[in-house]
Amino acid sequence: MIVDCGVYSEGLRHDLPKDPETVARTIGADQEAFGWVGLYEPSEAELARVQELFGLHPLAVEDALEPHQRPKVERYDDSFVMVLRTLWYVDAEDAVETGQVSIFVGRRYVVTVRHGEGAPLTTARQDLEDRAAVLGHGPAAVLWAICDSIVDGYETVAEAVEVDVDEVETSVFSPERTSDAERIYTLKREVLEMRRAIAPLREPIEAFAHGAVPGISHEAAPFFRDVADHVIRVSDQTEALDTLLSSALNAHLARVSVQQNDDMRRISAWVAIAAAPTMIAGVYGMNFHNMPELRWHYGYYAVVALMVVTCTSMYAGFRKAGWLGPS
Amino acid sequence: MIVDCGVYSEGLRHDLPKDPETVARTIGADQEAFGWVGLYEPSEAELARVQELFGLHPLAVEDALEPHQRPKVERYDDSFVMVLRTLWYVDAEDAVETGQVSIFVGRRYVVTVRHGEGAPLTTARQDLEDRAAVLGHGPAAVLWAICDSIVDGYETVAEAVEVDVDEVETSVFSPERTSDAERIYTLKREVLEMRRAIAPLREPIEAFAHGAVPGISHEAAPFFRDVADHVIRVSDQTEALDTLLSSALNAHLARVSVQQNDDMRRISAWVAIAAAPTMIAGVYGMNFHNMPELRWHYGYYAVVALMVVTCTSMYAGFRKAGWLGPS
Amino acid sequence: MIVDCGVYSEGLRHDLPKDPETVARTIGADQEAFGWVGLYEPSEAELARVQELFGLHPLAVEDALEPHQRPKVERYDDSFVMVLRTLWYVDAEDAVETGQVSIFVGRRYVVTVRHGEGAPLTTARQDLEDRAAVLGHGPAAVLWAICDSIVDGYETVAEAVEVDVDEVETSVFSPERTSDAERIYTLKREVLEMRRAIAPLREPIEAFAHGAVPGISHEAAPFFRDVADHVIRVSDQTEALDTLLSSALNAHLARVSVQQNDDMRRISAWVAIAAAPTMIAGVYGMNFHNMPELRWHYGYYAVVALMVVTCTSMYAGFRKAGWLGPS
Amino acid sequence: MIVDCGVYSEGLRHDLPKDPETVARTIGADQEAFGWVGLYEPSEAELARVQELFGLHPLAVEDALEPHQRPKVERYDDSFVMVLRTLWYVDAEDAVETGQVSIFVGRRYVVTVRHGEGAPLTTARQDLEDRAAVLGHGPAAVLWAICDSIVDGYETVAEAVEVDVDEVETSVFSPERTSDAERIYTLKREVLEMRRAIAPLREPIEAFAHGAVPGISHEAAPFFRDVADHVIRVSDQTEALDTLLSSALNAHLARVSVQQNDDMRRISAWVAIAAAPTMIAGVYGMNFHNMPELRWHYGYYAVVALMVVTCTSMYAGFRKAGWLGPS
Amino acid sequence: MIVDCGVYSEGLRHDLPKDPETVARTIGADQEAFGWVGLYEPSEAELARVQELFGLHPLAVEDALEPHQRPKVERYDDSFVMVLRTLWYVDAEDAVETGQVSIFVGRRYVVTVRHGEGAPLTTARQDLEDRAAVLGHGPAAVLWAICDSIVDGYETVAEAVEVDVDEVETSVFSPERTSDAERIYTLKREVLEMRRAIAPLREPIEAFAHGAVPGISHEAAPFFRDVADHVIRVSDQTEALDTLLSSALNAHLARVSVQQNDDMRRISAWVAIAAAPTMIAGVYGMNFHNMPELRWHYGYYAVVALMVVTCTSMYAGFRKAGWLGPS
Repeated sequence: MIVDCGVYSEGLRHDLPKDPETVARTIGADQEAFGWVGLYEPSEAELARVQELFGLHPLAVEDALEPHQRPKVERYDDSFVMVLRTLWYVDAEDAVETGQVSIFVGRRYVVTVRHGEGAPLTTARQDLEDRAAVLGHGPAAVLWAICDSIVDGYETVAEAVEVDVDEVETSVFSPERTSDAERIYTLKREVLEMRRAIAPLREPIEAFAHGAVPGISHEAAPFFRDVADHVIRVSDQTEALDTLLSSALNAHLARVSVQQNDDMRRISAWVAIAAAPTMIAGVYGMNFHNMPELRWHYGYYAVVALMVVTCTSMYAGFRKAGWLGPS
Repeated sequence: MIVDCGVYSEGLRHDLPKDPETVARTIGADQEAFGWVGLYEPSEAELARVQELFGLHPLAVEDALEPHQRPKVERYDDSFVMVLRTLWYVDAEDAVETGQVSIFVGRRYVVTVRHGEGAPLTTARQDLEDRAAVLGHGPAAVLWAICDSIVDGYETVAEAVEVDVDEVETSVFSPERTSDAERIYTLKREVLEMRRAIAPLREPIEAFAHGAVPGISHEAAPFFRDVADHVIRVSDQTEALDTLLSSALNAHLARVSVQQNDDMRRISAWVAIAAAPTMIAGVYGMNFHNMPELRWHYGYYAVVALMVVTCTSMYAGFRKAGWLGPS
Repeated sequence: MIVDCGVYSEGLRHDLPKDPETVARTIGADQEAFGWVGLYEPSEAELARVQELFGLHPLAVEDALEPHQRPKVERYDDSFVMVLRTLWYVDAEDAVETGQVSIFVGRRYVVTVRHGEGAPLTTARQDLEDRAAVLGHGPAAVLWAICDSIVDGYETVAEAVEVDVDEVETSVFSPERTSDAERIYTLKREVLEMRRAIAPLREPIEAFAHGAVPGISHEAAPFFRDVADHVIRVSDQTEALDTLLSSALNAHLARVSVQQNDDMRRISAWVAIAAAPTMIAGVYGMNFHNMPELRWHYGYYAVVALMVVTCTSMYAGFRKAGWLGPS
Repeated sequence: MIVDCGVYSEGLRHDLPKDPETVARTIGADQEAFGWVGLYEPSEAELARVQELFGLHPLAVEDALEPHQRPKVERYDDSFVMVLRTLWYVDAEDAVETGQVSIFVGRRYVVTVRHGEGAPLTTARQDLEDRAAVLGHGPAAVLWAICDSIVDGYETVAEAVEVDVDEVETSVFSPERTSDAERIYTLKREVLEMRRAIAPLREPIEAFAHGAVPGISHEAAPFFRDVADHVIRVSDQTEALDTLLSSALNAHLARVSVQQNDDMRRISAWVAIAAAPTMIAGVYGMNFHNMPELRWHYGYYAVVALMVVTCTSMYAGFRKAGWLGPS
Repeated sequence: MIVDCGVYSEGLRHDLPKDPETVARTIGADQEAFGWVGLYEPSEAELARVQELFGLHPLAVEDALEPHQRPKVERYDDSFVMVLRTLWYVDAEDAVETGQVSIFVGRRYVVTVRHGEGAPLTTARQDLEDRAAVLGHGPAAVLWAICDSIVDGYETVAEAVEVDVDEVETSVFSPERTSDAERIYTLKREVLEMRRAIAPLREPIEAFAHGAVPGISHEAAPFFRDVADHVIRVSDQTEALDTLLSSALNAHLARVSVQQNDDMRRISAWVAIAAAPTMIAGVYGMNFHNMPELRWHYGYYAVVALMVVTCTSMYAGFRKAGWLGPS
């Protein structure tokens, strides 16, 4: 689907029909203008049409059709293609979902191809159209705006996952018995997914930030430096989350062992308390002819009292030793 | 076994007898043509025959006879040899098997030596013969076609293993008692096997992609970039699978501990419930002469009722505390 | 809040009103002087006012407002901005807290923006004002004094955490039953926090130390080398603490297992000791008509003696085997 | 001990007395010849004699006397010394033993000093003397022949250890109870020993392979490339074995936990089955006057039947729940 | 404390009073001589006196006063300072202790400042004074002699720790129950201490060995190469010890689990053996009127025999199944 097509010069949008052909024609005629064509999950035909108009490289176009690319920057003569993965957090499932944005950057055009939900580029476009000064930098400004918006998305997701990690921590160390292994594992999996989306971005965005990419002007570099900074920060944050989750799993294991030990001692204490009267009763259940106690008038009461005393003092002893307390 | 021998010029196959001698003779005469000789698990004699015709390096030929080489690229003056490991997945055994393809690339010839099943090069050859434009690039095109087909094989295998990992995950976190350690270990072993096949490829294919290898023309580079990209992606994927399997083993350990604790508490609860009536029965089994309850008319029924009440309330208590539930 | 504003030349402070406008005016007039403006959690308006006076880069100013930046050095033409994280230890909570200091360094001015408690820069300023020789080096001296004071803070925190780690170690290996997993985990988390504050500093401070940054004179380099040295030392120390905590968690797990085993054997020994008289009593509780012992005059006493002897010798046996001792 | 001394020119051995003095004299006279002196655990005097004849560096000679050097290549003006560790597998003890070979390579001589069993260089010498073409390359050929023979030894050892790892794997996952921790640990120790012998070789042999060492001719490089390839392969193999052993230890731990759980449930099931008749017997062992069942003529048989039915149905229930099966 | 002060030329010591002033005066007068001043835990005043005489850098002097520096080499114009940590093993406590040696190396002087026990430099000085040829190389020779002596100390410590690791290994795998976690943890801590002392030395000593440091002559390089070699070897050894200790802790955990399982089965077997006669006794303790066995003349004896047979055959069965053996 073709979402939006705009031609810009001196930071302002031309009032033109929104189709790629108009864009191509206009930038062909006006050397100061550049175009931005935005596609969302385009059909092969739509993409082929745009490819022909702007002379996009066939291999890059193939990649843009498949929504499971690795983040990367590929250069072709005087243009390059950047592939980014978008991340968003689905509250209902506590899951991190991924999409893809391919950005074809030429001297005077930008073509964006988006797959999946998350990071709607229309917002990025509107924000940019409101900032004529920035937009005046041309395709680099568009590239920056998109990267910035996607990387902001990473930070939102990282914060949501951090909240989940805090929850799982609280659960691990709560006095209640919990089985947190699955939750920790699932979170590790999400964090791994995030790292695979974010880590490969570090290098190309730092290249932009150092002005090492033709087409990115020297003035644009500080803006990309800001994005690079966010990428590094969110990348460090996911590493830290990963480390925390590993430690949390180990701590969970240690806690389960300690709880098991506590339970075992509590159970054993009760078994011992129950075994004592049973043993005493067994003794006075023996059938010896000559057992004087049996004939005592208050023998029975004395033995029951003995049982109660034994159990009570055992209970007190175990309590004191911490075998029955919440320890 | 000599599988196929072809001579190509301008993207088309010459109609000639399929033996290496014809190939050598034709490319000797026609400066525009190049030959492709395909061998499958050749005898030493067959390979020696081909070696003499094309002047292959003796050490490289030795390597091509042994099917347990490490993936690598070795350069000799104006030719080089690439060794790749092929991977395929045997559904019946849930196992990853490995084979080997050695590719001798000279200026005007390609000799391929394949060991083991997987990645049948005949398909790669047919696909390539159908694309005259690509085939026109000469030996580099053949090298690309083979690399592409083998790396596609890696992705197929990685997906099959990913399915296995998903299964083992489901099993680890299923409420049933499972002993997943062996399955996880076996999968780790397969993933290790995959990594040993894939990881050493990264560097040489990226060298091709950057046009840093003589004999790989500048136009061919983007194609190898595409292959390099797939290699990196599948390499990242196997790393991720490895990490997941380690976490899954730890999670399995945590789950077993939790289950053991649950079982211990359930068992203990039942032991306690059984111990109560035994203790009561013991008391009324004592032989004291003066035990008024024994003489009560409904004493026995009262005690049995007491037993039932005790057991029932204990059962209710344990149930509430979660010692008997599925927790 | 504007904390302090000073103009310095030849190592001495001018006696002037403390507002940024005066600073800007004075250094505009006197080519030998430089100014130092210190802000603490400034409002956007305050920072904008200072930004205009000294021509600070808008992106750097944006970063200085947000208190969650990553440590870094960003260069802009003839000025640069350094962001450091401050660390301090809250005794009451055994927790490491973090703040932030942004330092804008131009040719003849320094602007510092601090967030959070810890590392009060007023002390650093006073110390520096007392050392005219050092202060004579200009903005580099101010930068050094601040870095030095913050890195000293890292060492104080690292020592406090090391004390905590020693405590947790003692607890892990004490004969008492302890559940140290949570404490170890929390410490790991703090150490991770510290590493994220310290590790990214290594590279930029080493750049200062090698005189690789314009504006840092050759004579100032050894001072930064000293700071770099402290950063490396405290960074190594936190790595070591992290490694120790991982080992401590594993050792804790091993200890819990050993204790559980000890408990199980102690409990089992007592169960066995109690089971023996119960079994003997059961035998003499049988109702056979012909059981000669039952008719013996001292049968009952003999059996009770047998019970005592059995229990005592079992007790002695278990004691000797180490099943009842503190092992 | 001086094992063998030979003088070679044009790939052939001169027929001369086997003492180092003759070698030194002959190569002094004949500019085309080179000598190879082989020593086995030489006395200090023997080595000093050879040192003087060929002018070996005193520090290198010191190293050659101590049999616990790290693998390395040290260069001195126009000669260099290579130290390799030899590995061999002692079947009787399932242990990897290490020895040492120091190779002094000058322009026209090779002096080898061997310590420990394994890699007898006489075989390497004989093989080389049979290949005049190779031997014609001079000292580089000797160096290659020794490296090749020692690295072949590494592969033999690695295969023997791989067999041990396979055995321990089978043992870990066998249904029998095994205590594999010690075996796994011992294997890890051997693998560590192997890695310490092999890993430091990678770099110097690759330097030979790239012809970066003076004295190694360009034609010899492919031969060293072959050796380098084997070193990398066996080094990768030991890394993989190490990873597998770590996983195997974790898997063993998981298996022990699962088995413990299985045992606990089986034991508990039997305890429960035994507790039921005990409880029933207790009830009918009570001494109430009014217990109608006691007076029933078939009461006893009914109760025994009840016990049997209870036990049988409990057995069936546990069996079905998998508490008694081999699960 | 000033330990010793010497002036040397041409490898021989001048016969002069042992105070720093004499040294400074003599080397000021005699261009061929160099001085070596040795301090042990000097007071600030002593060090200030020496600093003034030889013009040592104030920051380096500050570092030399604090005994907790990180190993490093700092260069100042035509001099440099090396800081090394000394290690020694205290047998009585099985502990590794650390000290510090700072070496100020100028063109014609060496000043050494030692803290803590271990590596007494007087021995190094005497050895060196006995080797005029080596001492003739000037300050570099002194530096080498000290490094060599300190690194020899590392090897002694590493061997002592290796003995401890061997002991703990034996203990882990002994059939006795041991609680090795604390010992392993303590050893890990010592090894970590060693690594922090040794690892940072690798780089600067290798720089000396490659002659990359001004003031270290080309002839001295092989000697430093020898030291560098020892540093690498002992550094590898400590890494290996660390890896072994981690594996040993895991193996200990596995062993404890296996032992717990063995104990549990042994305990359960005995519980079962005791439960059988209790159950039988319970049956014949029931009070049914019609229980023919009770009236049999040898009923009692038969039942006791039944109990004995049951217990014996259960014992034999458990023994055979390995539940009672040492397994």
